[in-house]
Amino acid sequence: MSLKMTELIEKKKRGGSLSNEELRFIVTGSLKGEIPDYQLAALFMAIRFQGMDQRETSDLTREMLNSGKVLELSSIPGKKIDKHSTGGVGDKVSLILAPLIASAGVVVPMLSGRGLGHTGGTLDKLESIPGFRTDLSIPSFLKQLSHIGVGIIGQSEKIAPADRLFYALRDVTGTVDSIPLITASILSKKLAEGAEVYVFDVKVGQGAFMRTMKDARALSSSLVSVSSEMGKKASALITSMEQPLGEMVGNALEVKEAIDALKGEGPADLIKLTMQLGAEMLHLAGMVRNIEDGIDVLKGKLQRGETLDRFREMVSWQGGNPRLVDDYRQLPQAKERWEMQSPSDGYISRLDAYEIGLAVKRLGGGRESLQQKIDPSVGIRCRKKMGEWVRKGEILMEIYYNNSQQLSKVIEGLSSAVELSPERVAPPSLIRDKISL
Amino acid sequence: MSLKMTELIEKKKRGGSLSNEELRFIVTGSLKGEIPDYQLAALFMAIRFQGMDQRETSDLTREMLNSGKVLELSSIPGKKIDKHSTGGVGDKVSLILAPLIASAGVVVPMLSGRGLGHTGGTLDKLESIPGFRTDLSIPSFLKQLSHIGVGIIGQSEKIAPADRLFYALRDVTGTVDSIPLITASILSKKLAEGAEVYVFDVKVGQGAFMRTMKDARALSSSLVSVSSEMGKKASALITSMEQPLGEMVGNALEVKEAIDALKGEGPADLIKLTMQLGAEMLHLAGMVRNIEDGIDVLKGKLQRGETLDRFREMVSWQGGNPRLVDDYRQLPQAKERWEMQSPSDGYISRLDAYEIGLAVKRLGGGRESLQQKIDPSVGIRCRKKMGEWVRKGEILMEIYYNNSQQLSKVIEGLSSAVELSPERVAPPSLIRDKISL
Repeated sequence: MSLKMTELIEKKKRGGSLSNEELRFIVTGSLKGEIPDYQLAALFMAIRFQGMDQRETSDLTREMLNSGKVLELSSIPGKKIDKHSTGGVGDKVSLILAPLIASAGVVVPMLSGRGLGHTGGTLDKLESIPGFRTDLSIPSFLKQLSHIGVGIIGQSEKIAPADRLFYALRDVTGTVDSIPLITASILSKKLAEGAEVYVFDVKVGQGAFMRTMKDARALSSSLVSVSSEMGKKASALITSMEQPLGEMVGNALEVKEAIDALKGEGPADLIKLTMQLGAEMLHLAGMVRNIEDGIDVLKGKLQRGETLDRFREMVSWQGGNPRLVDDYRQLPQAKERWEMQSPSDGYISRLDAYEIGLAVKRLGGGRESLQQKIDPSVGIRCRKKMGEWVRKGEILMEIYYNNSQQLSKVIEGLSSAVELSPERVAPPSLIRDKISL
Repeated sequence: MSLKMTELIEKKKRGGSLSNEELRFIVTGSLKGEIPDYQLAALFMAIRFQGMDQRETSDLTREMLNSGKVLELSSIPGKKIDKHSTGGVGDKVSLILAPLIASAGVVVPMLSGRGLGHTGGTLDKLESIPGFRTDLSIPSFLKQLSHIGVGIIGQSEKIAPADRLFYALRDVTGTVDSIPLITASILSKKLAEGAEVYVFDVKVGQGAFMRTMKDARALSSSLVSVSSEMGKKASALITSMEQPLGEMVGNALEVKEAIDALKGEGPADLIKLTMQLGAEMLHLAGMVRNIEDGIDVLKGKLQRGETLDRFREMVSWQGGNPRLVDDYRQLPQAKERWEMQSPSDGYISRLDAYEIGLAVKRLGGGRESLQQKIDPSVGIRCRKKMGEWVRKGEILMEIYYNNSQQLSKVIEGLSSAVELSPERVAPPSLIRDKISL
């Protein structure tokens, strides 16, 4: 145990503010193994209850960021811009957005993560492309960025090791749900990319980690303020995660839907959100005069096929076969398909993203533990979305599965995920708010 | 890590109530080593913030109590009654009270503790008597109780092992200051004695662990209610710990003062508190009609020397030489004495028990770590108490020490422990409140 740590826990417990020096002591002491887990756990719980002010959160973020490697991108010409989503169901935006804004002339050095809980992860999705590697070395990654302006890889063990340690502990001690700790966790990894501009997609609703607008606003403000204190341009869109984004949930299915979107054939909500985020990024970087101009620029890139070309290049640079874009049979396919029919007529008033995300995880599309291998082929297609009218017997969802025992385990949850109403229901508004400094 | 434990932490964190089964899982799982310290630490911090209701506190106490041995006293005739003090400075009441009420015909099976922080411990005091053993085996202890009705020994490792584990962890994780956890810690050890009646002396003020009347009342109510739920008769006196109790602070010095009191020569506050607690115990046990009768009975025992005889017997049964009662030179004596003089005329308006307790600890009279050996001979005699008038140059305190370096380290703290006022100051009221069901 650490005597000094006992004092710092007491201080935070009584609502005090930890100094930069104290936060550095905590981060470096933990990594050196000089602060035992039980003292860290008590501190995190005290932070969960007492919070941290913006200065503390920034200092903690900086110490966690500096506990690891930070990319040096100055040798690569162009603005470096990235987006980060707090995690949702069916959220394949990064797969489209990264090549999209790269095709508009910026550099997107995306360090991404894996699925967490009921949500999917960009790396897991990309790895359903045969041969696709997300573990490039830093020099290979930088080379790729200087050639094609876009790449998506994982956070290696050298990135923010303090977050790795802290998150593993928070996960089993009930201390995940703390805005300052979430902020420091996200930013200590994300800012290690070394980009200059960040747009956050803070998901809100049943399928998100932030269930209420209040929490989503608090996290958004915290992410934007702390990023800004770290010298970054940043803003956040708060976007709906009541129902899945797009139709597809599941790794290979989402890759397919993302490529459809790159071809201009994606579902409306997915396209709309991707465009809004992309335009926000270009605008924040000072590359367009307003959001509308940004959307026009991006639409042009998409329509002329420049974005799809950029995606092909990325797949190729990262070890996959770019012909996949024209031949989806290269993606893993589930052996079986089951169709869930509507039990009655009605408007869809609920299409619970959380239940659907959980079902895909249980079908094998997500992990129960970090070691577990996922099945990229399984997933769910939502044929109908909130606000749509369905007739009794019409197909609501298609479930792609490989194991009928797993199927039987998810059917009940999926049935309860859908609710029908005899009265017209408006679909949830997709973009709820924007937070900027 | 324990998955179930993660859920229990979440539940408590959100203000939920843990079931008896869940609390049993926590206690037994911790003792089996199946629940890691970091999960326990997070749970304790969540309890620190969210509290526990009375049912939870009772269940936790019962599980902790049953994690170890509970004495079986039914073969010993007579009412079994005990007192527990939450810890103070100069609090040698147990040394007087145990033989006192035993001389009134009850059995006092006292399991006691050691000094904690700035406070002294009954076992440490008794062990300043050469040969006195506080580690009697349970059979020896029971034999002693059946013969003389009184004994004071330590809590062996077989008593409430869960508390041993929990307390060590709470001590280094900032989770000591929780009323339900304090209640469960005190009662899981104290009720292991198997007595039927308990009176709690809950100290309040600068030299106590409870600094405010609000906290002291909360702890008192909790101790009394939970004891009652465990089938005990219980009440609590809330008593002042602004200044030391009596004049002496330090192990051998306190034994000497306790024996003085047994001879009817003790300081007024010490005698008064001992009598009040003793009368409360007799009354609660139904042995006298009211507190006044109880005091009369106890005064008679004291005056006739029956209590001093009982003390001699206890010393003898536990390995000490009872002639010590008539020859204080058998107690360890400090080599040096330093007198602190009053810097001016005035009424004593502050005589800080915390600073004085800390000074005695630093002179060697207490432990910095559990392994440390204490020096029983050192201590402080407070020649003047709050409310008294002193002249400039008059002796305020005598410091008994063996090491002049240690002396120099405590002088500053002791000087700041005393404040003088030109105006008359009332001494703090000794007995502040009584809490019963």
